[in-house]
Amino acid sequence: MLPYRELSDAAARAIDDSRASLQYGTPEYQIKESIVELMRMREVECHINEVFLTTGAQQALSLLVQLLLPSVSRSVLVEEVVYPGFRQALEPFNPRLVPVRTDFVHGLDIEAADWAIRQSRPKPTLFYTTCVGHNPLSLTMSAGAHNGLMELLCRHRITVIEDDVYGLLQYENRAVPPLRALSKDGVVYVGSFSKILAPSLRVGWIVAPPKYIAALSALKEGSDINTATLSQRIIASYIERHSLSSRLNILRDNYRVRRDTMHRELLCELDGIAQWQKPTAGFFMWLHGVGLGDTTKLLSTAMKRRVDFVPGTAFSVARSQRYRSTMRISFSHCPAEAMREAVVRLAASIRDHQPRRAA
Amino acid sequence: MLPYRELSDAAARAIDDSRASLQYGTPEYQIKESIVELMRMREVECHINEVFLTTGAQQALSLLVQLLLPSVSRSVLVEEVVYPGFRQALEPFNPRLVPVRTDFVHGLDIEAADWAIRQSRPKPTLFYTTCVGHNPLSLTMSAGAHNGLMELLCRHRITVIEDDVYGLLQYENRAVPPLRALSKDGVVYVGSFSKILAPSLRVGWIVAPPKYIAALSALKEGSDINTATLSQRIIASYIERHSLSSRLNILRDNYRVRRDTMHRELLCELDGIAQWQKPTAGFFMWLHGVGLGDTTKLLSTAMKRRVDFVPGTAFSVARSQRYRSTMRISFSHCPAEAMREAVVRLAASIRDHQPRRAA
Repeated sequence: MLPYRELSDAAARAIDDSRASLQYGTPEYQIKESIVELMRMREVECHINEVFLTTGAQQALSLLVQLLLPSVSRSVLVEEVVYPGFRQALEPFNPRLVPVRTDFVHGLDIEAADWAIRQSRPKPTLFYTTCVGHNPLSLTMSAGAHNGLMELLCRHRITVIEDDVYGLLQYENRAVPPLRALSKDGVVYVGSFSKILAPSLRVGWIVAPPKYIAALSALKEGSDINTATLSQRIIASYIERHSLSSRLNILRDNYRVRRDTMHRELLCELDGIAQWQKPTAGFFMWLHGVGLGDTTKLLSTAMKRRVDFVPGTAFSVARSQRYRSTMRISFSHCPAEAMREAVVRLAASIRDHQPRRAA
Repeated sequence: MLPYRELSDAAARAIDDSRASLQYGTPEYQIKESIVELMRMREVECHINEVFLTTGAQQALSLLVQLLLPSVSRSVLVEEVVYPGFRQALEPFNPRLVPVRTDFVHGLDIEAADWAIRQSRPKPTLFYTTCVGHNPLSLTMSAGAHNGLMELLCRHRITVIEDDVYGLLQYENRAVPPLRALSKDGVVYVGSFSKILAPSLRVGWIVAPPKYIAALSALKEGSDINTATLSQRIIASYIERHSLSSRLNILRDNYRVRRDTMHRELLCELDGIAQWQKPTAGFFMWLHGVGLGDTTKLLSTAMKRRVDFVPGTAFSVARSQRYRSTMRISFSHCPAEAMREAVVRLAASIRDHQPRRAA
C-alpha cells in the first residue's frame, strides 16, 4: 500500500537536488504548507506558525507530555483502554492515571469522566484521546459526543492531546472532524505521515497554540535536535510531483475493501463466538466475547498458524481481567485476497484453544 | 564533504531492494555489525547485544539521562564548559548541576572534580564528558589523564556518559581511545553517523552494558518508536558498496587540511589578540583572550561580514562572565580555499568592534 517507486525517486531526487538534504536544517516550509492543507481537509483552519514537526506522532506525544505535565501534582485523565504508546510517553514522569470507563460500543462515558475528574486528587490537567479511529477500540465518536466532551473538559480546564493519526483514513461519506475543530486553545493536535505516506520516514506533526511552539522547540532540540532533514525533503519531493489528496483516496479505497472483506469473513467464521463493530476509520477491529477465551494464551496458538493479533489486556490501563477475552486485529496489512485465509486461521486457532481451556 | 552521489544511490537502492525500508522495523543487523567494527577502531571490543541504535547522538543523551538519573536526589557532575545539547537533555528532569573547573589548555581538573564531588549534596551519580575533541574546547585528554579520571569516578561510583562523536575524527598518528576502553561497566558510550556519514540521517548509537538495553528499548519506544528504518537501510546500502574506513580517511585528510589552514590563518591575523590550541580531533577551535572583547556583542558585527561563530558564554553552565572573551569557531564547514577569507573577515570584525568597546 506504500508508494515505493515514487518514494524511491523522491529520495534520490531530494539528495541530488539539494545538498541541504544531508545536513541539519530548519523545518521545510513546503511540508508545513502541506500540513496546513491536510488540516483543512480535517475542517481545521490553522496557520503555519502553529505547525510543529516531530519524529513521528510518538515523539509528538512524548514532547507534549513533557510540555504540558505540571512539575508537581501530575495527574492525567485517560480512557481505561488506551494506546500503549501514550502510556510509554508518560512513564518517565510517572503521573497519576485517572482511568475513565470506555464502552466497546458507545465509547467514552462522559458522565463517568465527570465523576472521575471530580473524585480525583490531584485534579487531572491533561487528557489523551483518539476520537476518530480509536486505537484499539476502532470507534469514532459522533460530532454530537465531541461537543459534550469538549464542554466537560473546558469546564474542568483540562487540556486535550488529540491523537488524530487515523483522521484522514475514514471510509464513509461524511468524515468526522477532530476535537481541534471545536477548540483552538483547549486541544493540542497530533498528526502523522506514517499512516498516509510511510512509517519509516518518522515525520509527524503537532498543531498547537503559538504560545507553546518555542518551548516545544527547546524540548525537541534536547530530544533529537531536529526532525530528519532527509525525511522532510523526501516528503517535499514527493509532494512536488504527486497529490497527497489522490494518495489518500487510493488508501481509503483499498483499506475500505480490506475492512469490508475482513468484516464479511468474520461474520462467516466468528459470528456467535465474538462481537465487533465494523469501524468507519483506522486500521483495526476490536473483538470481544467469552468465546475467545483467554486471548493472551490464545496468541501462541495463533502464532503457530501464522496469524497475529494483540491481546486486549495490553491496552488496559489497569491490566484488568475484564479484557481477558478481547483482542485487536488489524486489516491494514492484509491484502483483501489473503483475508479469508487469515480469518479462517484465526477462527481455527480459537477452536483449537477451546478444549484446552475447558480441560 | 558528504558523499552525496553515494547516499543518493543508497537511498534509492534501499527502497527498491526492500519494502521493509518504508515500514516500522527492528534494528538492522548489518548496521550493528558495522558499529562493532567502528568500536574496534576505537580500541573497544563490544558485542552486538551491547549496541543500541538512536535517533542521532542527541537522542542517546536524552535516553541515557532518563535511564540513569535517579528519581530523587538528582545530581550531575559536568564540566563548567559543556555541550549545550547535554544541558537540554537534562532540562526536563531539572537535576542539580555540579560544575567542575576545566582549563582551556589542560582540560578537566581532576583534583577540583574530587573536591566538587565531596562537597556536593546530593552526591552526583552521573558525569558527562567528551574526552576526545571536546565540544567546544576542542581538547583531547591524554591517555594518562583518562586513567586518573576513571579511577576518581569509580571510587565515587559515578557513571559516565561518554560522548565520543568526534572519536573517529582524530588527525594525528596515534588516536586516543575513549574512556569506554578502560571500563565496560562504568562508562556508557555514545557515537554517531552524523559526523562520519550525514547528520540528516539521524542515526547514532549507544554502547551500554546489556543490563541497560531492555530499559533503553522501552524509553526509546515511548520517545519515537524506533530509529527510522529508511535511514538505517540507507546506511546499510551505503556500507554494502563503500568502505567506512576509506570514508574516514577522506574525512580526516580533508578536515586536517582545513584545521591546518585555519590555524595558519589565525596566526597571521589574530596572534597576540587571541589564544588557541591546534586541536588533534573534532571540528572546532576555541579562541580566548581579552582582545576579543565581548564576543556576544561581537557576533552581530561578524554576521554583517557573513562570518559566524558561537560566543563562549553559550557553553558556560553558570553563564559566567569569565567566558565573555571566548568563542568557538568551526573549521569543518569551510573549504580550505575559503579559509583565508573567513579568518580575515573574523579579524576585521574584531578590529571593527574595538573602538566601540573603548568608547
